[in-house]
Order: sequence, then structure tokens, then C-alpha cells
Amino acid sequence: MDSVAQLTFIIFLSWISHVSSEAIIRLPSENEIPGEYCDSWRLAVETNNVGAWNQIPANCVDSVAEYMTGERYKRDCEVVGKFSLKFAKRVALAGDGRDAWVFDIDETLLSNVPYYKAVGFGSEIFNETSFNNWVKLADAPAMPSSLSLFKELQELGFKIFLLTGRSEFQRNVTEANLLFAGYRNWERLILRGPFDQRKSATDYKSEKREELVNEGYRIHGNSGDQWSDLWGYSVASRSFKLPNPMYFIP
Amino acid sequence: MDSVAQLTFIIFLSWISHVSSEAIIRLPSENEIPGEYCDSWRLAVETNNVGAWNQIPANCVDSVAEYMTGERYKRDCEVVGKFSLKFAKRVALAGDGRDAWVFDIDETLLSNVPYYKAVGFGSEIFNETSFNNWVKLADAPAMPSSLSLFKELQELGFKIFLLTGRSEFQRNVTEANLLFAGYRNWERLILRGPFDQRKSATDYKSEKREELVNEGYRIHGNSGDQWSDLWGYSVASRSFKLPNPMYFIP
Repeated sequence: MDSVAQLTFIIFLSWISHVSSEAIIRLPSENEIPGEYCDSWRLAVETNNVGAWNQIPANCVDSVAEYMTGERYKRDCEVVGKFSLKFAKRVALAGDGRDAWVFDIDETLLSNVPYYKAVGFGSEIFNETSFNNWVKLADAPAMPSSLSLFKELQELGFKIFLLTGRSEFQRNVTEANLLFAGYRNWERLILRGPFDQRKSATDYKSEKREELVNEGYRIHGNSGDQWSDLWGYSVASRSFKLPNPMYFIP
Repeated sequence: MDSVAQLTFIIFLSWISHVSSEAIIRLPSENEIPGEYCDSWRLAVETNNVGAWNQIPANCVDSVAEYMTGERYKRDCEVVGKFSLKFAKRVALAGDGRDAWVFDIDETLLSNVPYYKAVGFGSEIFNETSFNNWVKLADAPAMPSSLSLFKELQELGFKIFLLTGRSEFQRNVTEANLLFAGYRNWERLILRGPFDQRKSATDYKSEKREELVNEGYRIHGNSGDQWSDLWGYSVASRSFKLPNPMYFIP
């Protein structure tokens, strides 16, 4: 099916689910969100009020599509970048090469909007195979405000650590994609190893941050689009949450 | 000065600060936020990206006023209430009278919008004397979605604890205001005592939650408009962040 057909099918399913009440089909998404509440749902996602979720509400596909492809998402990210830099400029760096900033990759440094555009902006359940095929293309563009921040942090003297939920087998394509998008000279790229596969992102990322702290790094800042990039233990002095209404990672 | 004159003065100061660059006057607010970025600034506040702040950006007074008095704020709060209740309904209550839910008061159960309307919606630095005079009136209306949630939680069997940054000397007026607004039968109202005055809200509220935990209460949910209502230690199983772009409490 092409993406329009897939969307049509999902909307049809949602309609079936609506007319048949709870009786026959009940999609796991929040189908009951009325269209005029989609912006409020998005805010609830960003403030972690929704809890775990695996599909955007059926009524909010157009709203999320408009948000992700319009000016507002770009501006929201720019403002996060602006406050990140403002904080970074006030950090007193020790200058011993141990001043660190941690970045997540997907929807933080690289944008997967071209992929999500083709799969209904998160209205479909996450398909690992199809997403991994997209990752293999190494074609994700940079998020412009993050690329600026990345470079400015390096100029200020921060060591940049990339901590991603992607797996070791994706190391080469991930490096290729980062270079293609304009990122250079990161200190280390940390991916999930064989023993990290079943861990939650919060646990896996906390462990990896703790390893950095044990190596003597001071994690001043951390940027990510998921709260699971930022919460847990060995957290940064300041955490910066980029918006992402397309998917949730625990 | 009346509030219009104060606003005019602040806008004038901001203009002075703009034309004179950093040289003469530098207001502590984020004057450099362009008007079309005010929604993004608001999101940055809600996701705690802004850090500590004490005035809304001068360019965003109209935007915050429109948000707080229009449909959007109401809807945002309704959606938070909806997800809070959804979670609450899934909690397996022990039925021993120790299943707890913690609410903050200002901008959580009670709305101070009538007060903030008169002082530029957070564009002025917080004035404790004038705010305390407002509190004394015991005239703050209920936030409708919170009043519904409050009642529904009680029907489900939760014990309700009110944990506020207000001080003991405001106990009577606070109780009177809560009753006037329609709240009934809370388990306990916890206010800042003499030894809590200099503590951050995060520390004070964490200590008070810890005391509840030590008494055997299980804090399933916590609702507040500030991250300092929700973070720290002895946190609830799920925390719900209500929007508040008018002020920040550390």
C-alpha cells in the first residue's frame, strides 16, 4: 500500500471502531481525542502526561502532519536550541577535556520526517523493519537548529557524545548519515550493544551516562526528543527536551 | 500605577533596552523573543527548557493573555485531567485508606487568573504583598477540569492531599477559598511551616511527600503546574503537569 492508501485504511478502521463502540475493534490509540484537542494532546505528550502510547490519535493525523512539516516545529526546535546555547555559554568549563554534552540522534540531530511522512506521521504502529530500511539509506537530514547548537558547543569547548537507541549493527550507516548531514568531530558514538537490547531507553541511557561520569566527564547538558533520553540517573545539569509528537520511547 | 500604565512602562523599558542594545538597561526577562515565537517559548516553559525565569518575555504579554483567557488553556487543562483520570482508573487500590493523590493548589485546583490579569499576566516581577492580598480575598475560582478530577478521584477511593507553597498563616483563607470553589473532604492541607520558608519548592514538597510515604501512603498520582511540584524524591507513580506560562517556581 502507498502511504495515502495506508492512511485511508487507518481512518476507515477508526471509523469502524467509532460506530461499533467498544464491541468489535478497539484500536490501541487514543481515538477519542476530538480534532480540536489535538494541540492539547501534543502539549500533553511533550509534558509526559499521556504516559506510554504507540500511535497518535486517529483524529490528529492532519494536525501532527501540519505541525511537523510547518513553521511551528521548526520554531519550537529553534527556541530549545536558543535556551540550550544560553545555558552552555554560562557553564564555567574546566578546560580539561572533560566538559561533556550528550545528544540523542533521531529527532534530535537527524530528522526522520521524510520516513514518517510516508507512514502517517506516527498513526501506524512502529515497524522496525521498515524503519531500519530507512536508516540504512543514511539519508536523514540534519535538524538545522541542532546542527547550529552542535557546532557552537564545540566552539565553546564541549566534548560531544552521541547516545542513541540505534544498535551497533547500524554504526556505519549512522556515521555516514551524520557526516552527510554536516556533523563532524563528535567525541564518541554510543549505540546499543548486544546486552542493551532489552533495556528501556531510560535504563540503557542512564547506564551509559554513568559510564561517562565514571570516566570523569561532567555532563553539563543533554538534548533529546524523549524524556527517556533525559531522565533516570547520572542526568545532566540541564536537560533539553525537543518536541516529538510522532512516537514515544519508554 | 494601574496595570495598563505598568504594562506601558514595561513595554517602553523593553524598547529602550532594544534600541540601546546591552549598553544601558537590561531587563531580566527574555526580551529578545520575537512575537511569532511566543507559542514556542510557552512550550519551552512547559518542558522546562527555559530554566529559571521571573518575567514573561515583553513581546509575549498579549500572547500569554490570549492563551490564559481563551479556549486553549481550558482545553490543555481538560486533556491533562483526562489522562490523569485514565491513569487513576487503572490503579489497583488496596482499599486500606492509604491510596493517595497529591494536588498543588495555585494554578492547579484554584485559578489566580483574575489576579494575574491585573498585573500583566506575569510580565511584572512577582509581588508577594499584592499576591497575598489577593489570597486573603479567598476569591479564586476552581479550575473546572481539576474540580472534576478531584471529585472523580474521591469516588474511586483516593485520599486527597493538598500540598501548597502557601504558608501556615494562610490556612484559614485557603480553606475558605477551596470550599467556596467547591472542593470538599480533602484528607489534609499541607502548608509551609516556619522551617520551610527558605526551602525550594522541590525540596519542601519532596520532604512532605516523603513524610506521607513514611506514614504508609502510596502516592499514585501528583498534579501540579510547576515541575517543582512533581520532581525531587518520593515522587508519585505518575506526575501530571498542568500548563502555566505566567510564572516559574524553583
